[in-house]
Amino acid sequence: PAPPRLAGLGYGSLWLRLTVTPVGTSERQEQWEEVPQLGESRFGSLWPLPQNVVISPVAFMLRSSSFQIVHSAESSAGPGCSILQSAFRRYFEYMFGYTKNQGGNTKKGQDSEVTELQVWITSADSECDAYPSVTSDESCEFPEPMNFLIFFTCFLFACFYTPLLLLGLETFSQLVYEDQYGAKKINKTDVQDFPRFAHRGLLLDSSRHFLPVKVILANLEAMAMNKYNVFHWHIVDDNSFPYESTVFPDLSRKGAYHPYTHIYTPTDVKMVIEFARMRGIRVISEFDTPGHTQSWGKGQMDLLTSCYSGENPTGSFGPVNPILNSTYDFMAKFFKEVSLVFPDTYIHLGGDEVDFTCWKSNPDIQAFMQEHGFDKDFKKLESYYIQKLLDIVGSTKKGYMIWQEVFDNGVKLKPDTIIHVWKGNEEQYSKELAAVTAAGFHALLSSPWYLNRISYGQDWTVAYKADPHDFNGTDAQKKLVIGGEACLWGEYVDATNLTPRLWPRASAVAERLWSNQNVTDVGDAYNRLTQHRCRMVARGIPAEPLFVGYCDQEYKGL
Amino acid sequence: PAPPRLAGLGYGSLWLRLTVTPVGTSERQEQWEEVPQLGESRFGSLWPLPQNVVISPVAFMLRSSSFQIVHSAESSAGPGCSILQSAFRRYFEYMFGYTKNQGGNTKKGQDSEVTELQVWITSADSECDAYPSVTSDESCEFPEPMNFLIFFTCFLFACFYTPLLLLGLETFSQLVYEDQYGAKKINKTDVQDFPRFAHRGLLLDSSRHFLPVKVILANLEAMAMNKYNVFHWHIVDDNSFPYESTVFPDLSRKGAYHPYTHIYTPTDVKMVIEFARMRGIRVISEFDTPGHTQSWGKGQMDLLTSCYSGENPTGSFGPVNPILNSTYDFMAKFFKEVSLVFPDTYIHLGGDEVDFTCWKSNPDIQAFMQEHGFDKDFKKLESYYIQKLLDIVGSTKKGYMIWQEVFDNGVKLKPDTIIHVWKGNEEQYSKELAAVTAAGFHALLSSPWYLNRISYGQDWTVAYKADPHDFNGTDAQKKLVIGGEACLWGEYVDATNLTPRLWPRASAVAERLWSNQNVTDVGDAYNRLTQHRCRMVARGIPAEPLFVGYCDQEYKGL
Repeated sequence: PAPPRLAGLGYGSLWLRLTVTPVGTSERQEQWEEVPQLGESRFGSLWPLPQNVVISPVAFMLRSSSFQIVHSAESSAGPGCSILQSAFRRYFEYMFGYTKNQGGNTKKGQDSEVTELQVWITSADSECDAYPSVTSDESCEFPEPMNFLIFFTCFLFACFYTPLLLLGLETFSQLVYEDQYGAKKINKTDVQDFPRFAHRGLLLDSSRHFLPVKVILANLEAMAMNKYNVFHWHIVDDNSFPYESTVFPDLSRKGAYHPYTHIYTPTDVKMVIEFARMRGIRVISEFDTPGHTQSWGKGQMDLLTSCYSGENPTGSFGPVNPILNSTYDFMAKFFKEVSLVFPDTYIHLGGDEVDFTCWKSNPDIQAFMQEHGFDKDFKKLESYYIQKLLDIVGSTKKGYMIWQEVFDNGVKLKPDTIIHVWKGNEEQYSKELAAVTAAGFHALLSSPWYLNRISYGQDWTVAYKADPHDFNGTDAQKKLVIGGEACLWGEYVDATNLTPRLWPRASAVAERLWSNQNVTDVGDAYNRLTQHRCRMVARGIPAEPLFVGYCDQEYKGL
Repeated sequence: PAPPRLAGLGYGSLWLRLTVTPVGTSERQEQWEEVPQLGESRFGSLWPLPQNVVISPVAFMLRSSSFQIVHSAESSAGPGCSILQSAFRRYFEYMFGYTKNQGGNTKKGQDSEVTELQVWITSADSECDAYPSVTSDESCEFPEPMNFLIFFTCFLFACFYTPLLLLGLETFSQLVYEDQYGAKKINKTDVQDFPRFAHRGLLLDSSRHFLPVKVILANLEAMAMNKYNVFHWHIVDDNSFPYESTVFPDLSRKGAYHPYTHIYTPTDVKMVIEFARMRGIRVISEFDTPGHTQSWGKGQMDLLTSCYSGENPTGSFGPVNPILNSTYDFMAKFFKEVSLVFPDTYIHLGGDEVDFTCWKSNPDIQAFMQEHGFDKDFKKLESYYIQKLLDIVGSTKKGYMIWQEVFDNGVKLKPDTIIHVWKGNEEQYSKELAAVTAAGFHALLSSPWYLNRISYGQDWTVAYKADPHDFNGTDAQKKLVIGGEACLWGEYVDATNLTPRLWPRASAVAERLWSNQNVTDVGDAYNRLTQHRCRMVARGIPAEPLFVGYCDQEYKGL
């Protein structure tokens, strides 16, 4: 007898014009999983879901020829605020397209027409020229509401802080829809919103495969559409060193896949940072040491440990050599440069997966161990290195993030260090979160969000169900969890497949990190996410489909 | 203790300039699988591997300003053969790019320079204007060598049959490489080649998601690069009916996702067929009945069975209604049209996954069953329908392919029917292949090649290891296996992600169907496939990476 057939539903269309058509889903294609049913959410296509939102049935018209986004008189920002002017243009284009209705009638509209969106920055300093950052308040009182309130009553935004206003514009643009005649409308809607977690990050890896700047920028666009605010740039690793250093140009000249076509020049890096800044996104660079550094060794003599077989060097190299003064001279110069190139107040220092085999084989290191009384405990040598590195980076006035091993191995850390939890299954990472926060450190979760791991079907739901607060701990401990990061490691992705593989799967993580903890209805999420992914497609992002159906505007690329 | 670390290798570059750099692969990214090591194949970047090939170290130069592809004097084809002229241009562009070296020196070259590739069609009829087909010889004597011999001795091809010559040009283009100065070269190489299986198909599904024509054409390009010769167009299904019928225009008007933006017009279909023909690819359309037809019912009254709850119709519909004369009138007219629109001598009639629930509920069908003495055996009703359908299609002089259930259910079939095996694991599909061929029918395998199913890592190796002859049967039975098809069902793919998800995974199936049965070295395949995928990328196909590394020419799209 045939296996049981699973029920499924086809779906309609973008925006608020969903139609639901029951159709059979075949065993041939669907013997592997159940799929949720598609319907219409009372929250339309909003993604991630705001903290408080009430959409009334009262609809207003918007006319592209007359609609304006303006600074309110009380706002501390004005037309000189380039970050906002640029956002006005971007969101106008998202809402109305590029060329529609030019030269139309611009006389005052009717009562039922919205002619203006006023934006109001309430803080004394608009911070228009600043880089987005975790403010001191935020970094100390996670996850307190962060002074981000949008009073969205017939079309006035008030925000404390400019980067958050960008996110308010995203919300506004998500509320605009087309009626059946194609006319643009928005319903009277009350929104109060703020992020649940201050750190909503996405890791891209440009070492396993080089990612052209164009690809990085497109993903920053998509991040802004999903209210991500941290781009974790895992820029170098064993496989290649595409970061062009001005102080040590040999690092990319010899360590990149190609010294011209496969590197990020200083201009490229600036462009990425500025593009991100205009979207309220911080860029945190990761230069992972002492492991994951094979590519560093090609352009920097004596930086890596020489591995031995008995008394003879094998010609291959291990982690950074922690016993030489030259190592620390190099690191001081290098991280001095990095701290100036990347304006964010944090640097990610890696510290994961240090393989002791090569260190163990090296006679000089053996001697050093004995001298320092480390016995045979190579974790002590690792700690020795990391502590010296942290002192170096600390002297640049940067805060640092590190992968969990550094904490696990008992390295002495500054109290504001962020421990990045990436290992294990739910039971294991819950324990780690509890341990990290019990020790008083800030924690960041990635374990359930390794989006490079793929499986057949709707695997976004797995990412959606994970929660950074699912561990045993006090309220004070929970507050130390500053958020999470979706990671897309680069072994199997490059420009050909990165973007559709990442989106809308990363959107699931985005909602978990932004919306209220009680937003857990997978069915409602499915309804909104289906529309949200079509919106991303319409905006030029090749986000892959969640299930059968179509978008009014399909992807125009290949 | 940490899980064991797996060894891996980075790799160099496109063409024949591979360098091998040992680097660590991290547990963080690689706890799920072993990965093969990358090196250089003595067969360069050839894919799929020819039956016999000897590459000598003697290299010749090629100059884009003087190199020509010409018809040999003995050939039955000449400059009037549009299919070859078009292929000459295509392969010239693949080998030399679009704009290089215009107006260069055209005087006669040196001894070490190849100035000409002569092509020679040896059959009396060049078949330049014909559609590619399975010749009667081929379809009866699989897998005999099919008169396809390339005597590739300092640059003369001789082929019996024009479409096979296209494949020879692909081989030639794969032998051209750049030396370290960027100069184009080709080594003296002897090739004798023919496909192991005559039917090397790829199924795309344009019903679960509409696939823009542009996407279909790009995948036909990629198919030609992999010597696929059958595009199985699963054009309609439950979810939508994008095929615009001239006789029954309501089918797409009401059954497509959108009657204008999400349909294939007659011109679109012609374009796809002609584009395929120019690449030696047959287009076999599938119009699956009596199940998988929900979308048909929207534009064709009374075609589908009305489902009942007790004595009342529920308002929903089941498979095609097999008891009405109007059904067969419709099918006769519809398949008459289809047989004219699609020139291939075969049509795929589906016949899979018929759900009897609705038929069982319908009182008229119950009465009909009793009248015909079918008792409660709905397989007999299914057979009744299918046999009438086969008679209808048989009268159009087409051969037919059907999914395995039609055979399993004992429907009477013409001896040249092709049974498409899609169900089960290796044990199950081996049994099915044995049963189908024991009954004297031709078999086509897809079970191990459902490429819509994805998993993390190098899943191409699983597809690569499957073999259509791995079943218990006589030589005569083995000859009845005409080949296989890779299937990419459309639930989770559309224009955003189809192409990188399919390639180069479908390349693994292509080699299995083309090359000698003893070509099973996964390591050698990995080395060649890595280069082959970079070649596809350079030719504009966003084929995803197999593992870490880079291509000299990365993908330029998003």
